[in-house]
Formats: sequence, structure tokens, C-alpha cells
Amino acid sequence: MAKLSRLITAVLRLAVAGAAAAAAIIMVTSHETTSFFGIEMEAKYSYTPSFIFFVVAFAVGFAYSLLVILVRPGSTASRLVLLSDVVVGMLLAGAVAATGAIADVGKNGNEHAGWLPICPQVRAYCVHVEGALIAGFVSLLIHFLSIMYSLHAVAEPLCCSH
Amino acid sequence: MAKLSRLITAVLRLAVAGAAAAAAIIMVTSHETTSFFGIEMEAKYSYTPSFIFFVVAFAVGFAYSLLVILVRPGSTASRLVLLSDVVVGMLLAGAVAATGAIADVGKNGNEHAGWLPICPQVRAYCVHVEGALIAGFVSLLIHFLSIMYSLHAVAEPLCCSH
Repeated sequence: MAKLSRLITAVLRLAVAGAAAAAAIIMVTSHETTSFFGIEMEAKYSYTPSFIFFVVAFAVGFAYSLLVILVRPGSTASRLVLLSDVVVGMLLAGAVAATGAIADVGKNGNEHAGWLPICPQVRAYCVHVEGALIAGFVSLLIHFLSIMYSLHAVAEPLCCSH
Repeated sequence: MAKLSRLITAVLRLAVAGAAAAAAIIMVTSHETTSFFGIEMEAKYSYTPSFIFFVVAFAVGFAYSLLVILVRPGSTASRLVLLSDVVVGMLLAGAVAATGAIADVGKNGNEHAGWLPICPQVRAYCVHVEGALIAGFVSLLIHFLSIMYSLHAVAEPLCCSH
């Protein structure tokens, strides 16, 4: 049972890392230049602080998920892992929410603030950001599942001796 | 020790609820009408989806933190509480991040997207949103401390019999 539990954890962590890497890479490669009524418009992720935060958060999520596979379950370090899991979970949730908020303004604008949607002009860029957002959300979701799984193991210390 | 532990938990939960209520109320009451070059401009939280999300998230955080005080530590429900704590933590982190992202555009604009800052026109509104953001962040921080405290109690089941 202990081996199976460790295998499940490792698979979950690898899936988190994979989706996080995809999210960061898709976001970093989002770039489009277009001209609109003669005005050249360039869109790239580094122009938006929230998108930079997204890339940093998912790079951290990627590295963390890989490193944490090495921690032996049941060790003192594994308790710290649970704490840091919660921190990383909040970080990823924050990154997805901040990027989602800005992506919504990019797509729908905000007429009350006078912010026009930019997606009609830079369609490929928006599709890229949306892709990154979906990958990020998947990574967050699997990370959440892995927290649930670890919590279950910690909360029921007898689970693995069945 | 068990009584002290329960007291600490209750105090932390009450602090989370208080800050969450402050965050939601400050955000809901943020409203300003101003005229700019003859154009009337009205700013209120319900014009921005992220701010509505903020109010809902902190209303949930407020109600949850109060309800959860009633759960007896050590009971089966207290294990579920740990899981729902993580969910609520991610929800609050997402709300703070989404609101922070939009507040940043409101304050500094985004010249590449052609979004102008609105804070110079609606200063009082921006101060209100900033206040809500700070209260929300405080609530998130105390909620995080309370998760750390619960995790510590779960991870070391012998702690309370000393």
C-alpha cells in the first residue's frame, strides 16, 4: 500500500509539473504584432504584470512539483511538504485568477472604465493566453487533488498499513 | 492544552471573519461619480467582474470562518474542515490576486493595450478598492496561519496530550 501511495503521489506530481510547464511555456511564447488603422500594435506577455506573475508562479510550481517527488513519505520533511503544498496551491490559484481577470478585460473590455477589448486586434495572442490559462487551471486542479491525497494520508495515519 | 488549542483556533477564525467582512463591506460601498471634461463617469464595484468575485469570495470566507468554529477538533468533521480550509484559502487567494490585477490596471493603466488609468479621475473609489484589497490580504494571511495551525495539529496527533 505504501508503494502504491507513493506511486500515485509521484504520478500526480508529474502531471502537475507537466501542466505547469505547458502553462508557463505557452504564456512565454504568446506574441503577436498587428497593425490597426495604420498604428502598429505589439502584444506580448511581458507587457502585463499579471502575465509575468503567471509565468513565475507556474515555473515555481513546475520546479517544486519535481523536487517534492524526492521527499520520502512519512519523513519529517513530508510534513513541511504539506505546508508548502498549501502555499504553492495559493500561489497557483492567485496566478490563474489574476491572469483570468486581465484576460477577461482583454476579451470583453470594461466599458465603464473605458478599456476596449484588444482580442479582436490580436486574436492569435488571445488564443495563446487562453491556452496558457487552461493549462494553468489543469495544473492547479491536479495540484489540489494531490493536496487532498496527502491530507488524507496524514489525517489517517493507519491508512497505509491495511 | 486541548482547550488552549481550541481557543487559539477560534480567535484565528474570528480574526479571519472580521477581516473578510471588512474586505467585502469596503468593496461593496466603493462608489464614486465624477465628471471628466463634461463626461460623467461613475465607478462602482459591480462594473468589474473581478470585484464581484472578490465580494462573493470574502462573503463565503466570512460565513465559513464563523461556521467552522462550531466544529469540534478531533471529530471526523474536523478532517473535512482541513480540506475545505484549503479550498477556501485558494478562493481567497484568487480573489485577492484578481482584484489586485484589475486595481493595478486602474492605477497604472496598460499603455500597450491602450487602457488608461482611471484612478486620477476617481481617487476616492480607488482608495476604497485599495482598502478592501488590504483587508482581504489580511484575512487571507490569518486564514493561512489558521491552516498552518490546523495542519500542525493534524500532523502531530500527540501534540495536545502533553
